[in-house]
Amino acid sequence: MKILIIAPNNIVDNWVTVFNKLISKDSIVIWPNVLDYDKIDCVALWNQPHGLLNKFKNLKLIHSMGAGVDHILSDPSLPENIPICRISDEKLSFSMSSYIIMAVLFYHKRLIKYQSDKKNKIWDHNSIPEIDINIGILGFGSLGSDAGIKLKNLGFNVYGYSLNKKEHSDIKLYHGDNLDQFLNKINVLVCTVPYTSKTKNLLNIKLFNKLNDETYLINVSRGKVQNEKDILKAIEIGKLSGAFLDVFETEPLPKNNKIWRNDKIEITPHIASITNEEAAVPQILDNYNRMIKNIELRNLINLENEY
Amino acid sequence: MKILIIAPNNIVDNWVTVFNKLISKDSIVIWPNVLDYDKIDCVALWNQPHGLLNKFKNLKLIHSMGAGVDHILSDPSLPENIPICRISDEKLSFSMSSYIIMAVLFYHKRLIKYQSDKKNKIWDHNSIPEIDINIGILGFGSLGSDAGIKLKNLGFNVYGYSLNKKEHSDIKLYHGDNLDQFLNKINVLVCTVPYTSKTKNLLNIKLFNKLNDETYLINVSRGKVQNEKDILKAIEIGKLSGAFLDVFETEPLPKNNKIWRNDKIEITPHIASITNEEAAVPQILDNYNRMIKNIELRNLINLENEY
Repeated sequence: MKILIIAPNNIVDNWVTVFNKLISKDSIVIWPNVLDYDKIDCVALWNQPHGLLNKFKNLKLIHSMGAGVDHILSDPSLPENIPICRISDEKLSFSMSSYIIMAVLFYHKRLIKYQSDKKNKIWDHNSIPEIDINIGILGFGSLGSDAGIKLKNLGFNVYGYSLNKKEHSDIKLYHGDNLDQFLNKINVLVCTVPYTSKTKNLLNIKLFNKLNDETYLINVSRGKVQNEKDILKAIEIGKLSGAFLDVFETEPLPKNNKIWRNDKIEITPHIASITNEEAAVPQILDNYNRMIKNIELRNLINLENEY
Repeated sequence: MKILIIAPNNIVDNWVTVFNKLISKDSIVIWPNVLDYDKIDCVALWNQPHGLLNKFKNLKLIHSMGAGVDHILSDPSLPENIPICRISDEKLSFSMSSYIIMAVLFYHKRLIKYQSDKKNKIWDHNSIPEIDINIGILGFGSLGSDAGIKLKNLGFNVYGYSLNKKEHSDIKLYHGDNLDQFLNKINVLVCTVPYTSKTKNLLNIKLFNKLNDETYLINVSRGKVQNEKDILKAIEIGKLSGAFLDVFETEPLPKNNKIWRNDKIEITPHIASITNEEAAVPQILDNYNRMIKNIELRNLINLENEY
């Protein structure tokens, strides 16, 4: 068994960690560190360089590292007759979307105020009980779009942003250079971007300064996407009204981090959903074993349907 | 103007209070306290006794007190050629369902634990982050069914109970004598019943003892539907794992009530949604004025469609 991860611009350390728990260390290779292309019999892909797959003479299985396969099928020189599988992420979406909706409603329904009122035995029936919100999903991929569509179906205003152009009949989507226009529309920012060289440190004071005042931040992507010093500063100056964070630059969150004691920040210990790699790696290994044993593969792509 | 409320078995004090804020006290009458049937020109109805409406010679407008009109149209001796209108409750449903979903997710995602962990600077990544839940909607009417269907669409198991038989293609519904079977299925009980002589004190220890251990209670209906002493007792003995309450036997909640200091109970000051009467009374008066001025009525029923 020799599995090669090809995911340029993606940081795959956590993937390797999960693979290493389940198979021997020398069974897993990361492109471009390939000594012998002929020994690779399975590739796990995220945005592979087009044409690269033709170098592998003994490839038996192509596996997407996510639920989507458009990034694989867009390769005009994709080798023929090699099965292509994808990750099934239903449980991932269910858990992640439930978390996001909880965080959004927690803010919208002012639960932070009512919890504080309870402590002080204050009965305030007269304050406006709902904050008007326009929700922005930053990273409208498989997980982000699931949450966005569910929030839209609950009756909320939802906008989306993704790096590459996407379309949705009910939700206004922005892409590429139109990030500022997207940020201008919203006052709840939900971050569901993948962790890449482009998204590292994305949630910093420069981005926060482009937001409407009193925007609420929800981050369920990866800790290194956020700058925690800047989040605390943005809350202090009122750019952010608060934050609901599941991920942190350093995990576990160090005891001396000011976030622990900030009343405007809710935190959970990276439990919004199991991570993509924790869901995906066992699925890739299961399909590898099925391929070896000539058993029917799971989540096999039908090339005619393109999914 | 003489508006008669006909709602047998319903306690309509709050309706009268809201009417009295907007029109003179002698313009509003409660059945059966009618001195002169001929002076009534508008009736506001909830389950009127069949045949009763034929007594009114000068009736110009029939108004449902809720979103439904089936309770009106089921009367075989309904007078002809009198317009029938209903309440439009979109905003009511949006607010109420958002509240219910927030409370359900707050419990499902164990936010009470994670909020407590934050206070104590505890990072617990390893505990199971989600409680498996089966949600029961007690009172599957206009508001309850909206929340139930939305929760079902989010991927949760949902059951419903209503006094009279109802059907839904995706949600298993119980009715009438099958309350115990319904209670046996669930571990999250959402109470959305109307306040009637039958639902007064419904949420008492006798009902709680029929629940699965560690059931979570959410009450957004009316305070007098619940017995607060019994809720506290049920939490103490583990029948209830906790409660999320928007309504109370006495409002504002008295300072000496033990609920204020119970860590397993979340409370809000009757803000889940504006109440039905607060939404409905202005709509009834608006339609009354439109009828007088011969302007098009709002939410007029088409008898052929039955809605």
